[in-house]
Amino acid sequence: MILLLGGSGYVGSSFRSLFEVRHIPYRSVARAEVDYYDPARLVALIEQTRTTFLINAAGYTGKPNVDACEIHKAECLLGNAVLPGVIRSACEATGTPWGHVSSGCIYSGRTADGTAFREDDPPNFSFRRPPCSFYSGTKAIGEEVLDGASGCYIWRLRIPFDHCNSPRNYLTKVLSYQCLLEAENSISHLGDFVTACFACWERRVPFGTYNLTNPGSVNTRQVVDLLRQYLQPQREFRFFASEEEFMQKAAKAPRSNCVLDTTKSEAAGVAMRPVHQAIQEALTRWQP
Amino acid sequence: MILLLGGSGYVGSSFRSLFEVRHIPYRSVARAEVDYYDPARLVALIEQTRTTFLINAAGYTGKPNVDACEIHKAECLLGNAVLPGVIRSACEATGTPWGHVSSGCIYSGRTADGTAFREDDPPNFSFRRPPCSFYSGTKAIGEEVLDGASGCYIWRLRIPFDHCNSPRNYLTKVLSYQCLLEAENSISHLGDFVTACFACWERRVPFGTYNLTNPGSVNTRQVVDLLRQYLQPQREFRFFASEEEFMQKAAKAPRSNCVLDTTKSEAAGVAMRPVHQAIQEALTRWQP
Repeated sequence: MILLLGGSGYVGSSFRSLFEVRHIPYRSVARAEVDYYDPARLVALIEQTRTTFLINAAGYTGKPNVDACEIHKAECLLGNAVLPGVIRSACEATGTPWGHVSSGCIYSGRTADGTAFREDDPPNFSFRRPPCSFYSGTKAIGEEVLDGASGCYIWRLRIPFDHCNSPRNYLTKVLSYQCLLEAENSISHLGDFVTACFACWERRVPFGTYNLTNPGSVNTRQVVDLLRQYLQPQREFRFFASEEEFMQKAAKAPRSNCVLDTTKSEAAGVAMRPVHQAIQEALTRWQP
Repeated sequence: MILLLGGSGYVGSSFRSLFEVRHIPYRSVARAEVDYYDPARLVALIEQTRTTFLINAAGYTGKPNVDACEIHKAECLLGNAVLPGVIRSACEATGTPWGHVSSGCIYSGRTADGTAFREDDPPNFSFRRPPCSFYSGTKAIGEEVLDGASGCYIWRLRIPFDHCNSPRNYLTKVLSYQCLLEAENSISHLGDFVTACFACWERRVPFGTYNLTNPGSVNTRQVVDLLRQYLQPQREFRFFASEEEFMQKAAKAPRSNCVLDTTKSEAAGVAMRPVHQAIQEALTRWQP
């Protein structure tokens, strides 16, 4: 039995869809039902449900966007840094393998050599390597809390998108923002991401950290061009002149824009589609 | 009614003694009794007990020393960074003034000018200004979580000591450590500290952050000389040749050694005794 925490969230819902479509037995537990932040209750839940694999899709991302984390700091720390530690303890105590939905937003730009960030590069957009957003700071500490964990996958997601219009979907965001920031990013098709996460477990790839973005990178202007081409929106797309103007006019917290290396997941056999292909497919099937 | 959280700890016990001696009505609540990490339960507790002032002496310090925080990261974050945010929410929701026992261990050394750190100097021994211990990182984030809180005192304690032999007492530690690190520090007499904390509220000094250390500073060698003079211990005191040797042989996490400026608490009328006087009095009354 798969135990899914955070099943009502944007990522958690996509795990549920995957399991429904593939008829994989799972149990999605809401915090209101069982307070899984309590280590003893989580151990009991794991034992009662005979969990064979646990997925943590719970976390605090901030709504409408990551700026909310600058205000709700305690909740953000609790969800992103403390909860992974609670789950680690419970899973290690019961010998339960598990996976944690982390974020690639603990990096900024590219490495000093101009290459994409590999899984073992230390975060450079974190409390320990400022500047960072509070959100990114807590996600990096969450990974630090899991350092040395046994039987644990750390799956790094970045800027999820798919074909379903949603305030959490990157493509919807680009369509709706008044003004955009030009930047190069690795991003994750949500369906590809959860499929790759679960494939890690199904294929018993070695435990550890995996960058699970669609291979390659994309610039905001490229995304706008694809939106224009496929959806023909009746609007102009404006861009901030610089990151400074963006920070001054639109954001409280700096944003992570970065490129991740995906060769580890490719070598492990859990690769996702190339990023441009995934975007084009999402726009072809777009559900407004 | 004063509501005391963390009343069973080293600092909390000293608050209890203060209230007992002065016949001040208070209620000390253990987490096992009421889970005050749950915002709704904390609000209910505040209302049921008609709390007029809340003191948070709860936190995670690590036993036998701060190195334990490098292992128990989630607990450390929960106690030192999340809990202050939960209490802030509950106190702001109920309009309850309160005080938080923070730490001066978010600084290292002296300022670039060679002066002691004032309350508004940004931490320089924290996740955002590495290196730091995990403990110090979480205490600095705890203060960040309280930034802008209304009706809130932040009381900075450092390296508590008094006349009672205890594994938590700095004088006991110096007496018992195999080898010592020479360093200059501001330190807090525990009784002076809790008296000064409560005086902030009694005298209604303006809310905000206060360095509550005994004015002045002390070197480890000076403390050893005083121990020799007053207690005449039958042992040699050895010192590490350098901080590098200390880190190599005795510690997992770097230690904060720093000097704090106490003019703000002095101006507010809640000053503590000069540090050498406080140490000498503790040694004169020493209870082995």
